[in-house]
This record gives sequence, structure tokens and C-alpha cells, in this order.
Amino acid sequence: MQDKIRGPLAPVLTPFKAKFYAPDVERFIAHCRWLIDNHVGLAIFGTNSESASLSVDERVTLTDALIAAGIPASRMMPGTGGCSITDSVRLTRHAVAAGASGVLMLPPFYYKGVSDEGLFAYYSEVIEQVGDDRLRLYLYHIPQMTQVPITMNLIDMLLKRYPGTVAGAKDSSGVWDNTRMMIDSYSRDGFDVFPASESTLSSALPLGAAGCISATVNMNPAGIYALYKGWDTPEGPSLQAKADVVRQIFQSVPMIPAMKCVVAEVSKHPEWRVVRPPLVPLDDATASTLLPALKKANFEMTAYPSASV
Amino acid sequence: MQDKIRGPLAPVLTPFKAKFYAPDVERFIAHCRWLIDNHVGLAIFGTNSESASLSVDERVTLTDALIAAGIPASRMMPGTGGCSITDSVRLTRHAVAAGASGVLMLPPFYYKGVSDEGLFAYYSEVIEQVGDDRLRLYLYHIPQMTQVPITMNLIDMLLKRYPGTVAGAKDSSGVWDNTRMMIDSYSRDGFDVFPASESTLSSALPLGAAGCISATVNMNPAGIYALYKGWDTPEGPSLQAKADVVRQIFQSVPMIPAMKCVVAEVSKHPEWRVVRPPLVPLDDATASTLLPALKKANFEMTAYPSASV
Repeated sequence: MQDKIRGPLAPVLTPFKAKFYAPDVERFIAHCRWLIDNHVGLAIFGTNSESASLSVDERVTLTDALIAAGIPASRMMPGTGGCSITDSVRLTRHAVAAGASGVLMLPPFYYKGVSDEGLFAYYSEVIEQVGDDRLRLYLYHIPQMTQVPITMNLIDMLLKRYPGTVAGAKDSSGVWDNTRMMIDSYSRDGFDVFPASESTLSSALPLGAAGCISATVNMNPAGIYALYKGWDTPEGPSLQAKADVVRQIFQSVPMIPAMKCVVAEVSKHPEWRVVRPPLVPLDDATASTLLPALKKANFEMTAYPSASV
Repeated sequence: MQDKIRGPLAPVLTPFKAKFYAPDVERFIAHCRWLIDNHVGLAIFGTNSESASLSVDERVTLTDALIAAGIPASRMMPGTGGCSITDSVRLTRHAVAAGASGVLMLPPFYYKGVSDEGLFAYYSEVIEQVGDDRLRLYLYHIPQMTQVPITMNLIDMLLKRYPGTVAGAKDSSGVWDNTRMMIDSYSRDGFDVFPASESTLSSALPLGAAGCISATVNMNPAGIYALYKGWDTPEGPSLQAKADVVRQIFQSVPMIPAMKCVVAEVSKHPEWRVVRPPLVPLDDATASTLLPALKKANFEMTAYPSASV
């Protein structure tokens, strides 16, 4: 059994071609390789990956392409959630067979007002149908999108029934008290909690957080990894402050299209700007402010692979 | 070009087996045949069908099974929405090729706060990729589940660009003023509005509504069809009142599991009670009140096919 994945993970941006919004496999591999080279993990198919906008087949194909390209599955935590048990089982089974370190699983998010009993039945059925001891399942709490929260009660029920398999959670609520409560309540049972922003790392790591799964790891993997390693050194506060400056730049604009704009500029691949509807690309006026703001912050995406190379 | 589908349509309940929650094709066909025999249309794969809980492959397989069984595609309006353009295109293309009278399409419902521009791009891309003049697309407004409304502005944009193809809407908001505004604004342009409950039929039909797509058409197709045909006769008020009594019985309990309980009883197939998680079956105490309540209302599901036959 491999060690559990820890540290910063990127919910990896998914590049599309303009025609039919088809995923661009080559740029996806290049982006993942750059992230791996910067020592961060790959939470492919998260919210910032526009994962909900991908079909199950597309997620399977992209995972296979990464593995064929030599990206280590042990550094991956694919999102395998969906609204259907059938889909979640297929994606989870595929991820486990590929050797992924874990899977990050949304609750089914169409029906609202569902009970913890119903969510427990959903996760249980997926775990039972996958039926593989290697499975490590991380619960994905992002109520602002799903409107279906992962409650403490649900975590209790699942941990009791599936200890070890239910391996942790990503808390995207943005509510610090919730993150702290998750860590305090469960991290001693080997339940790994990942907040959704590096801005809380200096507070969350001393409590026992496992790292973070944050959009801006796509932009600043080196800085966030340095913070993860050095938060408790004399440099900690300055590493946190530096990471926060970059985060702030993206937090003030629509984050997914903004990050894609920056990659488009840095990589010299204009198609990186493409987002799948219902998201819309960033307007040109806002887009033109991003690189100057990053430059002013003395930040660059060092050694990002460029089309001209 | 076939006539547009009108009248009452059932968001057809989907029967599952207990094992793996697999769809039960035979019971699905039998239920659809009974509905057709009662003169109502088949909005397969709607909210009450637990459609979000089905994979794309399952929806395709079930549609093919109905057609192979001789259920006329011209009486079907399959739900082909999802969060991904890839999925919506595949399902819509399949429905059109099969000869469905139209498709009922949810907006992508994972991301919240998306713009009308983004939703327009989504629907446009599906229409363009399907690229078939036979397509009749009905917009599905159900903000209590999606949190992504179909606004009047979006309807304007789509009708202007795709007249004829954008053929109507189902309004599940339950807000009468919204239904009335949709009918008043667009029905004269051949845009067919279906409210989500037969309880508004006597008010909506005189304004120009095309029928209704209502959960309880699964229970009471004959009564709702009679109301649709006879609302403007002397019997109209009594037909409305009779339909309302049945509707009320289901509206006061979790509707999907309750309807399945009743079909389980009437058909003598206990597996009809199975719902896919995250939904949960009705508790026995509540379930036991349903048939007596229906009996007291002098209602029965006449000629429903039974396991013992």
C-alpha cells in the first residue's frame, strides 16, 4: 500500500480546443508534467478542472493519456463524483485500477434536501461495487456548488463503516470553523483534511491538515510547495504572504477563465483561453490586467512549457 | 415533420432492481405501455424519473428498449440534459435519430451564478453539434434543483437565433406568475409551455399552455387526459377537482418514492419500491397510508399490468 498523498494538490485545469470544445490531450499532459516537476499532486477533474463539463468517457480517456505519458498515478487524486452511482463506480474503479492515490468524490448534486441516510447509501454502494481494498475515498464538501453538504454526521457514519477506505475530505466551504472542526474531529483517525486554499495553510497545517487542494496551485505550485514545507521555519510568514499575494490576484476575478488566460499568455497557446460553456471566457479588459498584476507581485510561472519551444 | 406533442406527459418513473440498482427494462416498458394506452406522452428521463441518477449509457439503452418494444418514439420527449455538452449532444442526437417528438433539456447545473450568455453558448453548441432540422428542444426550468434558471432573457436569445428548433419549455418553478408570463410572452410564436402540475391546467390551457408534464401523470393518466380534453366543458370543474384530489395525496409526501410504492402495490412487484440513492424509500408507516387515501378518493390505477397476470 502506497503512502497517503499529502501536500498541495492542483485541481488541474483542463485545456480545450476551440472546435467542439474537445479536450487537448497534449497541453493537459504538459500542464500536469509541469505541476509534478514542481512537487505538487494532481487533483485532476475537480471544480476548477471544469470536470462537471466533461463526460465520463472524456475523464477516462484523459486519465489514460496521462498514465501513458508517464505521469505517475501515485500523484493523482482524480475526481470521480457525479450524480449517478453508475458513473461514480465506473470512474472510481478505473482510477483505482490505474493506481491513483485516492479519489475525490462529490456527493450526487442534482436532488436537493437529500438525507445523510441517502448520501451514506450512495457512497456505500460505490464503495461496495468498486470492492477494492486499495480504494481511498476523499469526500468533497463544496456546498456552494452542490447545495448538498458533507455533514459531520455523514463523516461519522462513513468512517465507522469504512475506516481506512474513507480517507479524508476536501473542504471547499471557505468556512474556517468548518475546516477546523473537520481537522479537530477526525485527523487523529487518519482522516486527511485538505482546505481549498493555500491562504489557510499556516493555520491549518499546525492543527493537522494534510495539505491543500487549491485552484491557484495551478499557477503557483513552487511557492505553495515551499510554504507547505517551510511554514514552521523563520521564513514561514513571508512564504505565506508571498503565496497570498498571488492568490489575491485570482480571487478578485472569475478564477477559472483568469487562470486559463494566464496560461495562454505564458505558454503562447491562445487556445488555453477556451472554457466550456456554461462558463465564459474572461473579457479582454480584465484579462489584460492579470500579467501586469503578477509582474508587479514579482511572480512568474517559472519554466512553464511554451509553444515556441 | 410530425405534429408537435401536446397534452399531458408523464415524467416516467424508472424501475430499478434491488441488486446494483440496475434499471428493470421489462417493468419500464410495461409502465410506458400503460401510460400510452391512457393517451399521455412520455417525458422519459425527467426529474421524477431519477434521470440524474442514470448514466448516459443507461438512458440510451432504455430508450432503445422502448423503441424495440414498439412504444412510438413520436410520443416521447426524453430528457437529454446534463452538465456536459458532450453528454447532452450524445443523448439529443440519439433521441432525434430515434424519432422522438422533442427533447427536454436541463441547463448545465453544477456551476452556479452562470450567465445567460454562458447558457446560450451551451444550448447553441448542442443545437449546432446535433445539426438536425428535426430537433425540437424544450427548455427545462426547475430552479429549485438546478439553481440555474431559464430566464425570459435566455428564451428571447434562443428563440431569436433558433426559431422552430427551440420549441417550448417546461416550467417546474411552481410560480404561477412565471408560467403565465412564459405563455403570454411566447406561446403565440409557437413556443409550447408545459406547467409541471395538472393543478393549473384549467387556468393554463385557456391562456395557451400546451399541456402539462407532471409527476402524477404516472398515477392518474386517464383522469388528467380527461381534464385536458374536457376543461372547457360543463364537466371541467369536476374533472379538475378530481385530479386535484389525487395530486394532493402525493404532494404531501416524498413524491417519487411514494409513487413507486403505489405502483409496487398495484403491480404486485415489490421491487418497484426501489429508488436510487441519494433518494431513500418511503418509510413503511407513510407507505401504508397511500392506498387507503387513494381508495377514499375513489381512485385506482385502472388496468395497471400486474405481476400475477
